[in-house]
Amino acid sequence: MDIEQFRKAGYAAIDHICDYYANLDKRPVSSSVKPGYLAPLLPTAAPEEGEDFAAIAADYGRVIEQGLTHWQHPSFFAYFPTAASFEGILGDLYATAAPNPGFNWSCSPACTELEGVVMDWAAQLLGLDTAFHNAAGVGGGALQTTASESALIATVAARERFLALPTQSPSKLEELVLYVTTQTHSLGLKAGRVLGLQVRALEVRAEDKYALRGAALRQALEEDAAAGRRPFMLIATVGTTSSGAVDNLPEIQAVLKDHPEVWLHVDAAWAGIALCCPETRDALFLDAINAAADSFCTNFHKWGLVNFDASTLWVRDRKSLTDALDITPPFLRTAHGDAGTVVDYRNWHLALGRRFRSLKLWFVLRGFGAAGFRAHIRQGIALNATFGALLAASDILTLVTPPALALTVFRLAPPDRDLDLAALNTLNASFFARLAVRPDLAITQTVLNGVFCVRFAIGAARTTEAHVRAAFDVITEEARTALALWESAV
Amino acid sequence: MDIEQFRKAGYAAIDHICDYYANLDKRPVSSSVKPGYLAPLLPTAAPEEGEDFAAIAADYGRVIEQGLTHWQHPSFFAYFPTAASFEGILGDLYATAAPNPGFNWSCSPACTELEGVVMDWAAQLLGLDTAFHNAAGVGGGALQTTASESALIATVAARERFLALPTQSPSKLEELVLYVTTQTHSLGLKAGRVLGLQVRALEVRAEDKYALRGAALRQALEEDAAAGRRPFMLIATVGTTSSGAVDNLPEIQAVLKDHPEVWLHVDAAWAGIALCCPETRDALFLDAINAAADSFCTNFHKWGLVNFDASTLWVRDRKSLTDALDITPPFLRTAHGDAGTVVDYRNWHLALGRRFRSLKLWFVLRGFGAAGFRAHIRQGIALNATFGALLAASDILTLVTPPALALTVFRLAPPDRDLDLAALNTLNASFFARLAVRPDLAITQTVLNGVFCVRFAIGAARTTEAHVRAAFDVITEEARTALALWESAV
Repeated sequence: MDIEQFRKAGYAAIDHICDYYANLDKRPVSSSVKPGYLAPLLPTAAPEEGEDFAAIAADYGRVIEQGLTHWQHPSFFAYFPTAASFEGILGDLYATAAPNPGFNWSCSPACTELEGVVMDWAAQLLGLDTAFHNAAGVGGGALQTTASESALIATVAARERFLALPTQSPSKLEELVLYVTTQTHSLGLKAGRVLGLQVRALEVRAEDKYALRGAALRQALEEDAAAGRRPFMLIATVGTTSSGAVDNLPEIQAVLKDHPEVWLHVDAAWAGIALCCPETRDALFLDAINAAADSFCTNFHKWGLVNFDASTLWVRDRKSLTDALDITPPFLRTAHGDAGTVVDYRNWHLALGRRFRSLKLWFVLRGFGAAGFRAHIRQGIALNATFGALLAASDILTLVTPPALALTVFRLAPPDRDLDLAALNTLNASFFARLAVRPDLAITQTVLNGVFCVRFAIGAARTTEAHVRAAFDVITEEARTALALWESAV
Repeated sequence: MDIEQFRKAGYAAIDHICDYYANLDKRPVSSSVKPGYLAPLLPTAAPEEGEDFAAIAADYGRVIEQGLTHWQHPSFFAYFPTAASFEGILGDLYATAAPNPGFNWSCSPACTELEGVVMDWAAQLLGLDTAFHNAAGVGGGALQTTASESALIATVAARERFLALPTQSPSKLEELVLYVTTQTHSLGLKAGRVLGLQVRALEVRAEDKYALRGAALRQALEEDAAAGRRPFMLIATVGTTSSGAVDNLPEIQAVLKDHPEVWLHVDAAWAGIALCCPETRDALFLDAINAAADSFCTNFHKWGLVNFDASTLWVRDRKSLTDALDITPPFLRTAHGDAGTVVDYRNWHLALGRRFRSLKLWFVLRGFGAAGFRAHIRQGIALNATFGALLAASDILTLVTPPALALTVFRLAPPDRDLDLAALNTLNASFFARLAVRPDLAITQTVLNGVFCVRFAIGAARTTEAHVRAAFDVITEEARTALALWESAV
C-alpha cells in the first residue's frame, strides 16, 4: 500500500468509525455468534499474493463486527465500562503510526517525558499527594497495560522490599503470604499464581458492606505470625468488582502502622477515576491513600475516557520498583537515573518495550479538560442515582448493597413471599438467565457471600437517562416474567 | 468532540501520517532534545476546560515529534527494527476504535476467534509444525506484548510443570535455576528477577560464533545436579541481540532428551520472522524447533511489518499454560475450554484484559500476502549482503562474526597496525562515539566477549541500497577520522 492508497484507506476507516458510533445504539449490544463461527468464513492460510485493502476493510465489517460485543454501546451495563473517546482513538492513531519500543529515555525521549508529565496531570486530577508525582523525583507514576499487570508489578516490588529488610531476612519464598480479600479482583490470585506465592483471601462481611475492616486484618497478621508465615503485602480495594465495596483504609492504615513490612497496594481499577470529583474523596478514603498506600492503581481505560489499554500505577518510592526490576548492571546505574532526571521506564514494568500510551491520555485530558472529565464521571453517578431511585420504588426488585458510584447490585425479592436464600438464588438465576440473552442490553451477575445478585454498571460515554430507564423497564419486565414462571412451577 | 469533528480530525491525522512518511528521510534519525526538554513546553496540570483538537494535534507536531527517534526512518540501523506498515496502522485503528478487554471468548468472540485463526496463518508462514497450531487443539499460539512477556509466561509455565513432576517434587523455589547464555536478551534475567528465581548464564565462545553448544549445556546440568540445584528451563536464542547467534538447537535437543524435566523456550524475537523464507530454515534450526521446543516466540513488531506490539508465542501444550495461569475455580473448568473449542485467552497471559492485536496481524498478512512478506525479509537480507560486501572490501573495517540475516557486527581494525584488544576497544569506542552523534543514521554498539563492536541492523521497510551505501560511506569516513585522531594522540 503506498501513501495515497493509505490516505484513501485511512479516510475510509475514519468514515467507518463515524458510521459505527452514529448507529451504535441500533445494534444488539452483545454478539450472538456461536463458538467456532469465524474459522469457516476465512481461508486456512494467509493468501500467497497481497489483497486489495478495500476487500480487507469490507471483511472487517462483514465477518468481524458481527462477532464483537459493543462495550461502548449506550446500553452496555455489564462488567465495568471500557472507555472509548475520539480523543483516545486519535492519540492511539498518532502513537501507532510512528511506533517505537520506548524502553529507555534515549530511544525516544518524547515518550518517556510525556508520560512523566501526563502522569502528574492525572495524579493532580485525582487528588494524589505530591509524594506520588514524578516531578518530585521520589515516587512517581507510569502507564501499564492493565490493573492485573499493575498489581503484579507492585507485588514484585513488595516482595523484594520485604526480602531486603534486615528484620525479615532470611525468608523463604514459600513462607511469604499475599493478602487479598474474598472480594478482591482476580488480579490478586493471578499475581500469586504467576509469582508462585501463597495468597490468603481474608473474609469480609455483609454487615461491613463487603469491605475489609482493621480488626480482621490484625487478626490475620497475628495468626500468620504465630504460624511462621510472613505476610508481605495487602492488596486493598477501592471499589470492588462485585459490589463497589471500599476497604476501610483508615483502619487498615492504623493496623499497618505496626507492620511497616507489609506493602499496601490500593487497587482502585474502576472507582479510582471518580477521585477526580472532590465530593467522592471522603468515601473513597483519599486521605488514607495519600498517607499510607505504597502503590495505587486506577484504569483510565475503564470509566476514564481513554481507550484500552491505560492502567495508571503510582508508587511512593520509585526505587522500590527499580530495585526490583532493574537489570542494568550496577556499574551502569547513575545518580541521574535514580533521581529521575532521566527515567528509563523499562525498569518500571515487566517487559522491555512499551507502547506510547501517554499520548492518548494527554489527548483525552486536554480534549475534555478537567471540567469535562469530571462532568463525565458525575453523569455516570447521576444516572446510577436515577436507577437506584427506580429500584427503591420497585415492588419486586431490591438492593443488595447500597449503590456505589455508578454500580448497583440488586436482586429479585418479592416482598410478600417468605423465600429462603436457596429459593431466592434459584429464582434470581432464572431471572438473570432471561436478562443474559436480551439483545438490547448487557448486564452481568455476581455472588456476594452466597447471595446471587445482578450487577448494573454505568459508564459508557453515550449512555443517557433514556437508556437507563429503558433498561430498568426491561429488567422489571423480565423479573415479572421470571417470577410468574417460577410461581407456576412450584 | 462530536462525530463530524472526529471525521475532520481523523482525516487530518491520516494526512499528517501521509506527510510524515513522505518526508521521513529528510528528518534526522534520532532526536537531539536534551533531558527535560518537554516539561517547560507544557502546563503543569491538565487544562480546566477542554481544548480545540486542532491545537492538540498541532502540539503533537510541535512538541512531541521533535522528541521522537524515528525507528521507521530508512537510515535507522540501531537495535533491531520496529515495524510499521500502513496495514498495521489501519488494523490498530479499527481495533482501538471499538475497544474491548478480550479476556474471554464471550466478552467479544471475534477477538478470540481471529487470534486463533491468524496465529495459525503465522505458524504456517514460519513453517511451525502442526503441533503448535491452534486448530489441532493441543498446542497453540497467542499474541503477547513483547518477547519479554512471552518469555516470562513461558517461564511461569515451565516452573509449574517442573514443580508438578512427581520426580521433582518437593522442590523449593530457591533451588530452581533458569538457564540462559551470556548472549541471551535481558528477557532472561528479567524473568528471573520478576519471579525471584536463580538465573545461570552459560558461557559461549567466539569460536562457536557465540552460540550455545550441547557440551556446555550438559556440563552445566551435571554441575547443578551435583550441587542440588534444579535447572527447570533453558531459554535458547535463535538470533541473539548482540550478533545474531543461533544456539545449536540440534545439540541442545540431544542433551535435553536425557532431561525431559527442562523446558526449552526458543526466543527468536528478531530472527524468527525470517523463517518465512524456506532458505533460512536450516540455519535457524527449524527442524529442532519443531521437534524439541516447548515454546517459541518471535516478534512480528520487529522485522515483521506489524506495528508494535505483536509478540507471537506458541506452546506445544496449551494445558501447560492454563495449568499455570488459570485462576478459574475447578468447578468452572470445562472439557470444552480445555480442548480449545472455546479458548479464554486470559489464561494464556499474565493479565486479564488484552488488546485486539490479531486484527493488525490479519491486515498485514492479507495486505502483503505470504509472497510480499517474504519479499520484505529477503530485501533486508540482500541489503545486508551488500553491506557485508562493502565491509569485506574495506581497508580498515572488519567483521567480528559472520553477518546474520540482516545484522552485521564489525569493528575498526586497521590491518597494518599491531594493536592489542584494549587499544582496539579504545579506538572503537571513540569511533562509535562519532557515529552515535550523526544525525543522518542511527546505529548501536555491543560488546562480544570483551570485544567492543558496532552493530548494523537492517529492516525498516523504506531502507534501500542507496541508504545502505550512504551509511557505509558515513561509517568509513568516521572510521578514518577516528583513526587519524587516535594516531595523532598516541
